[in-house]
Amino acid sequence: MIPLVDKFVIKKYIESYLEEDIGWSDITTDLLIDYEVKSTSYIKAKEEGIIAGLDVVEMIFQLLDSSITFSKKKKDGGEVIPGDIIAEVKGPINPILKGERLCLNLLQRMSGIATYTRHLCNLIKPYNAKVTDTRKTVPGLRYFDRYAVAIGGGVNHRYNLSDAILIKDNHIKLVGGIKEALIKVKAKASHTQKIEIEVQNLNQFQEALKYGADIILLDNMTIDSIQKAVKIAQGNVILEASGNIDESNIVSFAKTGVDVISCGSLTHSVKALDISMII
Amino acid sequence: MIPLVDKFVIKKYIESYLEEDIGWSDITTDLLIDYEVKSTSYIKAKEEGIIAGLDVVEMIFQLLDSSITFSKKKKDGGEVIPGDIIAEVKGPINPILKGERLCLNLLQRMSGIATYTRHLCNLIKPYNAKVTDTRKTVPGLRYFDRYAVAIGGGVNHRYNLSDAILIKDNHIKLVGGIKEALIKVKAKASHTQKIEIEVQNLNQFQEALKYGADIILLDNMTIDSIQKAVKIAQGNVILEASGNIDESNIVSFAKTGVDVISCGSLTHSVKALDISMII
Amino acid sequence: MIPLVDKFVIKKYIESYLEEDIGWSDITTDLLIDYEVKSTSYIKAKEEGIIAGLDVVEMIFQLLDSSITFSKKKKDGGEVIPGDIIAEVKGPINPILKGERLCLNLLQRMSGIATYTRHLCNLIKPYNAKVTDTRKTVPGLRYFDRYAVAIGGGVNHRYNLSDAILIKDNHIKLVGGIKEALIKVKAKASHTQKIEIEVQNLNQFQEALKYGADIILLDNMTIDSIQKAVKIAQGNVILEASGNIDESNIVSFAKTGVDVISCGSLTHSVKALDISMII
Amino acid sequence: MIPLVDKFVIKKYIESYLEEDIGWSDITTDLLIDYEVKSTSYIKAKEEGIIAGLDVVEMIFQLLDSSITFSKKKKDGGEVIPGDIIAEVKGPINPILKGERLCLNLLQRMSGIATYTRHLCNLIKPYNAKVTDTRKTVPGLRYFDRYAVAIGGGVNHRYNLSDAILIKDNHIKLVGGIKEALIKVKAKASHTQKIEIEVQNLNQFQEALKYGADIILLDNMTIDSIQKAVKIAQGNVILEASGNIDESNIVSFAKTGVDVISCGSLTHSVKALDISMII
Amino acid sequence: MIPLVDKFVIKKYIESYLEEDIGWSDITTDLLIDYEVKSTSYIKAKEEGIIAGLDVVEMIFQLLDSSITFSKKKKDGGEVIPGDIIAEVKGPINPILKGERLCLNLLQRMSGIATYTRHLCNLIKPYNAKVTDTRKTVPGLRYFDRYAVAIGGGVNHRYNLSDAILIKDNHIKLVGGIKEALIKVKAKASHTQKIEIEVQNLNQFQEALKYGADIILLDNMTIDSIQKAVKIAQGNVILEASGNIDESNIVSFAKTGVDVISCGSLTHSVKALDISMII
Amino acid sequence: MIPLVDKFVIKKYIESYLEEDIGWSDITTDLLIDYEVKSTSYIKAKEEGIIAGLDVVEMIFQLLDSSITFSKKKKDGGEVIPGDIIAEVKGPINPILKGERLCLNLLQRMSGIATYTRHLCNLIKPYNAKVTDTRKTVPGLRYFDRYAVAIGGGVNHRYNLSDAILIKDNHIKLVGGIKEALIKVKAKASHTQKIEIEVQNLNQFQEALKYGADIILLDNMTIDSIQKAVKIAQGNVILEASGNIDESNIVSFAKTGVDVISCGSLTHSVKALDISMII
Repeated sequence: MIPLVDKFVIKKYIESYLEEDIGWSDITTDLLIDYEVKSTSYIKAKEEGIIAGLDVVEMIFQLLDSSITFSKKKKDGGEVIPGDIIAEVKGPINPILKGERLCLNLLQRMSGIATYTRHLCNLIKPYNAKVTDTRKTVPGLRYFDRYAVAIGGGVNHRYNLSDAILIKDNHIKLVGGIKEALIKVKAKASHTQKIEIEVQNLNQFQEALKYGADIILLDNMTIDSIQKAVKIAQGNVILEASGNIDESNIVSFAKTGVDVISCGSLTHSVKALDISMII
Repeated sequence: MIPLVDKFVIKKYIESYLEEDIGWSDITTDLLIDYEVKSTSYIKAKEEGIIAGLDVVEMIFQLLDSSITFSKKKKDGGEVIPGDIIAEVKGPINPILKGERLCLNLLQRMSGIATYTRHLCNLIKPYNAKVTDTRKTVPGLRYFDRYAVAIGGGVNHRYNLSDAILIKDNHIKLVGGIKEALIKVKAKASHTQKIEIEVQNLNQFQEALKYGADIILLDNMTIDSIQKAVKIAQGNVILEASGNIDESNIVSFAKTGVDVISCGSLTHSVKALDISMII
Repeated sequence: MIPLVDKFVIKKYIESYLEEDIGWSDITTDLLIDYEVKSTSYIKAKEEGIIAGLDVVEMIFQLLDSSITFSKKKKDGGEVIPGDIIAEVKGPINPILKGERLCLNLLQRMSGIATYTRHLCNLIKPYNAKVTDTRKTVPGLRYFDRYAVAIGGGVNHRYNLSDAILIKDNHIKLVGGIKEALIKVKAKASHTQKIEIEVQNLNQFQEALKYGADIILLDNMTIDSIQKAVKIAQGNVILEASGNIDESNIVSFAKTGVDVISCGSLTHSVKALDISMII
Repeated sequence: MIPLVDKFVIKKYIESYLEEDIGWSDITTDLLIDYEVKSTSYIKAKEEGIIAGLDVVEMIFQLLDSSITFSKKKKDGGEVIPGDIIAEVKGPINPILKGERLCLNLLQRMSGIATYTRHLCNLIKPYNAKVTDTRKTVPGLRYFDRYAVAIGGGVNHRYNLSDAILIKDNHIKLVGGIKEALIKVKAKASHTQKIEIEVQNLNQFQEALKYGADIILLDNMTIDSIQKAVKIAQGNVILEASGNIDESNIVSFAKTGVDVISCGSLTHSVKALDISMII
Repeated sequence: MIPLVDKFVIKKYIESYLEEDIGWSDITTDLLIDYEVKSTSYIKAKEEGIIAGLDVVEMIFQLLDSSITFSKKKKDGGEVIPGDIIAEVKGPINPILKGERLCLNLLQRMSGIATYTRHLCNLIKPYNAKVTDTRKTVPGLRYFDRYAVAIGGGVNHRYNLSDAILIKDNHIKLVGGIKEALIKVKAKASHTQKIEIEVQNLNQFQEALKYGADIILLDNMTIDSIQKAVKIAQGNVILEASGNIDESNIVSFAKTGVDVISCGSLTHSVKALDISMII
Repeated sequence: MIPLVDKFVIKKYIESYLEEDIGWSDITTDLLIDYEVKSTSYIKAKEEGIIAGLDVVEMIFQLLDSSITFSKKKKDGGEVIPGDIIAEVKGPINPILKGERLCLNLLQRMSGIATYTRHLCNLIKPYNAKVTDTRKTVPGLRYFDRYAVAIGGGVNHRYNLSDAILIKDNHIKLVGGIKEALIKVKAKASHTQKIEIEVQNLNQFQEALKYGADIILLDNMTIDSIQKAVKIAQGNVILEASGNIDESNIVSFAKTGVDVISCGSLTHSVKALDISMII
């Protein structure tokens, strides 16, 4: 089962993106193209990769004119090669042209994220670890960035500050230590939430283990230390590795036996997938 | 004079980004840090580059708590080297922690764009051409992306579909030709707006010249053809080159004598500048 | 081709106007008229003029109840004489009554603007000049006011402060002169934007011409001075006349040979066209 | 006691007007005027009239930059003659220039309405009648239009459809008659609301009187019929006259002895008061 | 004729409630239920009472997915007994599950209010008095709370501070007395609004009567005093009793002959009606 | 450490509540009280209980007029007895009167919830169990309702559908069983989220235990069955009891040894705490 796009949730975002790009109107298109002219356009892959965001794109055209029909030729999560038709867009060409740029901006970015995520997932397939995202997303695009990660085969980390507890180095410093932080949080936290804590070395790791963290984030630790942590943990806690992990080094982290590997690079410095729209 | 951030305009964007990242609260920080605890944090460069977005970051903290003071140690457009303190953030540490991630996400992206733009500008300094952006920005971030380009030394292209006329290949196809498009637009367009048209070869270029375009966008044309266009134009029209132009090939485009070079890469596949916040 | 109303853009305005006029409900209509009662209403001209705003009115009724059908009997830009049926509105009478006042308030104002614009255009038909609007619109109605001007045959000036450069007397004073202002702006402005500057006498005019303005706004200048400016310009710059110009004196301005005449009166002190709705 | 402007209520309107006029920035002012430049501007009357809207204007500048100081030299409701300084605006000139046009657009319109209302009130001073407004306001400006009427000395009618009952001719037709409408409404209406009904002749008037209306709106009736109605009513019901009443004929309506005279012309076809801002 | 729900008005409320409860998605349902799965659900009464809010619930499901069909088996205002099917909800089960909790939260509360209102109305049926609500509603739910009161047979008091005049004890204290308050208000109030004033004893009551209040609110007065007030009033003014009135004492208030009895308890401490949704 | 109110988050809610209650203005107060009149008001307890919501109330007055000073005499979570002054409100009395009703509506409800929660917590103090809330909150008030529960000493359950996984009976039915549901969810769920599942009997309970739920919700089970479940669980899973639990029966549930007891009654049928404001 692939992840679902919640149309109720994304509507307000799509509307704000359209407002941004249209301003008070597309003056070029309105001067040139009568609203009555109809046409069929095709969204086409120009590069190999994984598609993500088709429901999003469909909503763009629906909001511009509900008489536009959008037929998917691929599904989110499907692979494309150069030349593949991804979708067909039929209807009045005036509003289709108005939505073209936003459609491509979103689809290219989301597909770029999904493609890179799939690539990382494939690299570490022989191992147990899963790839996860971070809050290093572009402001305003978290929903779309995370959805693309899930389509690519990643597992999503927390959405934002309100839906999971993650005690970071600054919290620890301010509270006076890992023990103090865990005791304080466990006394008050909702029983529905796991407690994750960031550690930087094995001493901290053992303290976190002792005071009952549910997830331990091994941040910027050496492969060697991480391997030791995995041994000590014996499966009693979820282990997450992080710190400048990308395609160049992810395999060595996966080999350590950690459960999850978080990669800021998934959403932080995205390479868009080349997709075009032709009429 | 450096470009200004319009605080009235960005307030609503910053509020929406904070809503996205905070959700209904930062549960970790609220469980651990009393609101009364005060501290001083520093925003610090970890990589060489150009800073952009300090007024934006100041507003993030102002919106979270107006008692936070934000002191800039660098200005937008200034250069930083690893270790440089960019700004000092003083006040209740609880809301400062809540804003940290958004602050870094925006500042890193905007500074990354400014740094790359400056790099391109420097490459073509000996020539007459200016670097300009495109509408290939991340949805919802156009204001910030364009501002960063301007800080980097680029010249902004149109903000959105409503503030300049740009007749693209699809418009030309649908209307029946360059001549037809230019005649139709000139009959109705506001006298306050320039008319830009996209051409793909020298024949189209000469037709565009003849029918009075103010700007001609030479899209995906060879260096050779562009040179010919420059000669033919004799300075009577603004020439803009575009089509997969980046640091690897921008100099050869600049040498042709075009006036403006538009680079989707400026905002399309951004490499964030490494910046951190320490307490 | 007549201008288009961008439905995506106007929806939010129409919703806010309906909220203003309905409050939390139309208590009279809800006490008296069952929602099931259906009826046909007619929008009827009671005065001679030009109609503008039918797509806007259609959206009012659509937003109140999508089962209402709206059949136009006239088009935007068409002429009406007293007694002409402009449109037929069919469906549940309860929501039709709720929308009646807003429908008339907008249609009367927009048609009043279109009628007056057409009148001015007709007066200066023998000459080359076009009629244009200003930012002296009623706050919140700029989109609708400008659209009505376009329907009446006018050419729109800039929509707002962000989509064209217009250097006004206060800017000039603060910067130190026309030369200084033009040099400063030309160094930084986007290549996509024309530069318009306001002048009050022939000396200023010649300075503006010399330093390369694209459009010169001859503000409150005598007919005589304007004629001289036209001669000096020799068609090398767009000339716009302004300053209390209305039906009483527009012809004398048109005769001077200027390209555009801007009239605050178009939207500033509007005389609504008399239109009624009958059941 | 003069009416109050509710700052909480108007804030959202002023913000939307600023968004409309500023777009994504005032490109001319930002290119020319450093934010650090300070100056003092004056709002000045160029025509005789009544001022309305100073609190509104103050908020415009406050929202643009809270460091701007606004000193009123006149009060809302006060008279001005050409040359009078109405207010002084001090602070960074960049945001002051950005707010100038909106400031004048609102102040001129509101003062125009107040001036005309005062004029009508003065004309009928010897009589008992009061001047009141209608819902024929410009969409989106009802709050400001009504406030200006109150400042001019008029009495406000209902704000919108939800805060008073007014049974109009269409309601009567649909329900089957005045008697039927009044019985139906009185059975269900809140005890807190008066019931007003529109009549077109003396027969209808007597029916409305008999079935207990609180206010009877004598719409488009002759002076003679209205005089008769006043006699019949003997002060037992509030009488309101309406129907194309303006400065040319209001006195004859006032002489009849009606309590209130409603004038669509107050807000429908407004003549702005000439006011300027100088630096 | 039962009261109408204004769908244009409630849409924005329902959207905000859905945003609150869904956040960025229903993660459980999206992990488990494919969007293609269809089903029929039933809304069922588990307690005896009066139903209110079916149009509201219909809109919840419409906003989540317009392909969901909602068939009412009861009408607003109708009685239910345990086991009664109130409505059938058919369509994709994924969005139906997402809306279930909001549907029940609103329907149970509104039906609880309607049921209690009907109960009070029945208790005082032999008498002349009507039951009315107050502004003691839950913030953000006034529209729905008042609608439920109307469905239960009550008469609505003012919606908010802007749609009726009610002079309360604090106003009286600050102005210096009942006489002063009534004179001041009557000099300025719109002719369309009744003037209600709160009194606490018979002296105040007689002053309010003398200075022409339209409605007198007898607040926290003894049954004996209220009876005296009714006699003195002789039907010349509307009398409203208030002050901790509920099912335990409403009959004794009704017996006094007052016209209206306002009960904060209607909306202040609501007992929800037990309703469930089954698949 | 008591829970914090996030001012950034609540601002938009408070604004919407004020809009609801003020409409376009408080016509009574504006007719009677000049804005210049200053005064001191007191918020006073009339009943014994726990206070919750003082930061919320402070923001109400701040938004109405930032010159109002609000001095807390009690803290959130503190006990009050009749006659206690809770806070002092000083400043222009006009806006203070406008905010009074909203202030009391929120403070009474939130304090009512906190008081009842504290009462339940006290009842089960000898036992290990904690009291938690549900999603049976009033639409639009979830933030405030949950905050009041936390102030009363309860532990919050999930905020909404997006921040924890809770597999309910309908999900189980649709997926085909507890085993199927748990396997499906565990394959895809984020590692940051616990998985809670609802069971109705001991068979289901054992299946849930076997397939690795983190929390098991024992819904509507007998005290006897719950005791058995506690024994079987041996502390390896968090146990939550639910189903019509209130002050009458909570102790017997607590005695079973469950970890958490969820009570819809906390927010579902709230009894407001009696609090008044005096001038």
